[in-house]
Amino acid sequence: MAPETPLPPGSVIGILGGGQLGRMLAMAAAEMGLAVHIFSPPGDNPATDVARSATIAAWDDTAALEAFAAAVDVVTYEFENIPVATAEFLAARKLLRPGVRALAVAQDRMNEKELARSLDIDVPLFAAVDAASELAGARTFVGLGGRHAILKTRRLGYDGKGQAVIRSDDDAAAAWRAIGGVPAILEEMIPFTREISVLVARGIDGSTRAFDVPENRHRHGILDTSTVPASVTPGVARRAIAIGETIAAELDYVGLLAVELFVVGDGDDAALLFNEIAPRVHNSGHWTTDACLVSQFEQHIRAVAGWPLGDPRRHSDVVMTNLIGADAETWVSVANEPDARLHFYGKAESRPGRKMGHVNRIRRMAG
Amino acid sequence: MAPETPLPPGSVIGILGGGQLGRMLAMAAAEMGLAVHIFSPPGDNPATDVARSATIAAWDDTAALEAFAAAVDVVTYEFENIPVATAEFLAARKLLRPGVRALAVAQDRMNEKELARSLDIDVPLFAAVDAASELAGARTFVGLGGRHAILKTRRLGYDGKGQAVIRSDDDAAAAWRAIGGVPAILEEMIPFTREISVLVARGIDGSTRAFDVPENRHRHGILDTSTVPASVTPGVARRAIAIGETIAAELDYVGLLAVELFVVGDGDDAALLFNEIAPRVHNSGHWTTDACLVSQFEQHIRAVAGWPLGDPRRHSDVVMTNLIGADAETWVSVANEPDARLHFYGKAESRPGRKMGHVNRIRRMAG
Repeated sequence: MAPETPLPPGSVIGILGGGQLGRMLAMAAAEMGLAVHIFSPPGDNPATDVARSATIAAWDDTAALEAFAAAVDVVTYEFENIPVATAEFLAARKLLRPGVRALAVAQDRMNEKELARSLDIDVPLFAAVDAASELAGARTFVGLGGRHAILKTRRLGYDGKGQAVIRSDDDAAAAWRAIGGVPAILEEMIPFTREISVLVARGIDGSTRAFDVPENRHRHGILDTSTVPASVTPGVARRAIAIGETIAAELDYVGLLAVELFVVGDGDDAALLFNEIAPRVHNSGHWTTDACLVSQFEQHIRAVAGWPLGDPRRHSDVVMTNLIGADAETWVSVANEPDARLHFYGKAESRPGRKMGHVNRIRRMAG
Repeated sequence: MAPETPLPPGSVIGILGGGQLGRMLAMAAAEMGLAVHIFSPPGDNPATDVARSATIAAWDDTAALEAFAAAVDVVTYEFENIPVATAEFLAARKLLRPGVRALAVAQDRMNEKELARSLDIDVPLFAAVDAASELAGARTFVGLGGRHAILKTRRLGYDGKGQAVIRSDDDAAAAWRAIGGVPAILEEMIPFTREISVLVARGIDGSTRAFDVPENRHRHGILDTSTVPASVTPGVARRAIAIGETIAAELDYVGLLAVELFVVGDGDDAALLFNEIAPRVHNSGHWTTDACLVSQFEQHIRAVAGWPLGDPRRHSDVVMTNLIGADAETWVSVANEPDARLHFYGKAESRPGRKMGHVNRIRRMAG
């Protein structure tokens, strides 16, 4: 079932999920002459505006999944909280890239951390917390370095949701309640110097190509800006990319993989600690659309369609800024900035904390 | 009916025509958060793959046009051979940008040439030929310079269709038959040094922004390559752009206007002669997608939506090559070129002479 030849123009890429990542993937596919079929549950699915076809159905609607699988040439996803059962159902019928394992690992923070540790990648101290009674022991272990700890739900967390900081004994019970008393992971809080991410694509032949490493700042738990180049030395950037390549190889990954890392310290000796992966195109790669010849979206579609990977070279320095909720109201002023490229996701409704678009500000065109 | 404020994200752009230009316009609009509704007669309409809505109906289907006008916020076109009556019908109901006059002028080679001449723009010698009996007189006039002449249908010509060269008396009757004996224009054949085009956008406030001037080569009457920068001096490029601005102002144009020009001679003294206009995005501007911050497609949508025009600055030297008919079969090798960006139009069927896609080869990233 695995064609080792690239899917020709006219082939159909099935995308699970109908949000902004699916929308930008769909446009990249269309530029390559590939058609897109979106599968997503009911809701605001802006990707369907730029897709040839869409199936709006629940993740467990096997009749709809069956028809979807029959209608497409390969399946990918833009969203990592798709039920593993859905992914398995599709993988049994059609190529799924990236595969089920990448999805399953990324859905559980314990799995992610254990995978990284098994690959000799440095990770913050962590411990599973499956019940309130396990919290004290976990704190003793994680707190050995004298650091604060952060309690996170193992599953379904994103944009800072499902997280609570524990600074003292008094916080512990409240933290457990705050995250809803579900299976969790307690992690030491890393006093990082900066956060970076790796955006590495892996092709069907196992070759990899990485974009330059962006430096990411968060606000209220949501990505605010990604700046390229990051303030890390070339040696640190190479080490970061090697971490991404190691994980991608272990997962026999096909597509674009994002790995978020903490940087502690400066210069070549800075430490890198694993934070999490996203088995998909990533918000911290949105700058690639305007600063590189090939965007993360095209690179992902190239991999998924079995095409040779593109050249991720960057022609400009750039700062990507998310437009969250009411930020989107600044669009006229952004549209007037000569060095800014505005991207809107076509979402029907703006809500606080909702990603409505982003702007890439070109800082310097590199020679 | 003319809002002088920009249409906000979520607004709907109506596009007349469903071909590759509509497709690339639709994607540019989607990046800006604008929805697209395509109106096109039945056939291969690849733009509908990336549009939120589509009406497939004849140009004279007034019920369909009425509903289309009601469903969109502004109307533009990607194809200049839309019946003027259709454009007038829509312009009476909704903003049409560019307007009816630009369309009417561009549809008739006599109108184009007369417009240019009325604006003191140099044009080749030309004469109307409405009947076979007028051909001899026209040849006497046009042939004054001792040059060969070219007979072209006044209307509906494109990609070298509807044209016949007259080198001697023996050719004249055959040329008249070859173009189908319809109202025509006889033009002196200009022994040009090169061909260039102007890609100038004009906003609702009358401001203009031009892209760098490409140099165009044709093969079998169809555009083959556009190379930027063109081999003309900055002074010649400025004179060319001024011609585009003059025509755009005269037409009270809103959107991207293409003007094709002949260059005769070299250096600052080179002569520029008007060839024709296209009241839309243009094949010779396809390189802007990969070599500029803002593409011709986004620039057109910005103008049509009443947004401020974007910065047409170019970051790279580039050669655009059309993939015509069987050229498209080279896609795997093009996908392997590190400096090439491949664009396919999603057309269902390849035919000789049919534009299937194009490739932008980045030659040097400019500083």
